[in-house]
Amino acid sequence: MPIIPHALPDLCNLVGHVAAILTTVAFVPQAFKSWQTRDLSGVSLPMYSFFTVGVVMWLIYGVMLDSWPIIIANAITIVLAGVVLVLKVIHR
Amino acid sequence: MPIIPHALPDLCNLVGHVAAILTTVAFVPQAFKSWQTRDLSGVSLPMYSFFTVGVVMWLIYGVMLDSWPIIIANAITIVLAGVVLVLKVIHR
Repeated sequence: MPIIPHALPDLCNLVGHVAAILTTVAFVPQAFKSWQTRDLSGVSLPMYSFFTVGVVMWLIYGVMLDSWPIIIANAITIVLAGVVLVLKVIHR
Repeated sequence: MPIIPHALPDLCNLVGHVAAILTTVAFVPQAFKSWQTRDLSGVSLPMYSFFTVGVVMWLIYGVMLDSWPIIIANAITIVLAGVVLVLKVIHR
């Protein structure tokens, strides 16, 4: 059965890319909603504090590995999570 | 200068592990706040829908790579993001 082992790295990369796109794109509607409504009441400040620092660490990790997919995905997420974090600090 | 190239993979792993812990642990205060207050007004339903599906994809990616750190981090995040998603669906 040579087809499955041959196709597995491609499938694995595809799953990883779709996963990265989904968990990055997810923050677009949250940043948009927070920006438009300025309703941050249910949003957790500690969450966005830990998360933004964590994503900065992922960006550093990507730079260390010289991995452009990790760098780009996390650079976008920093901006989006950063918008929510700043709005939460202003409107808490 | 053998010290820096020798130490780099360890430092890289450390940064990656801290990043993974932070972006996982971040969802604890959000899930706790949402559970306690049932205030989900500022939380975006599309965000948690995309994010939870994305984290499931990350879990599948971890299983395909047989990577326990990816599996464990994402299994925890599925539970935490899943709690927020279910509460948002109930209390929207």
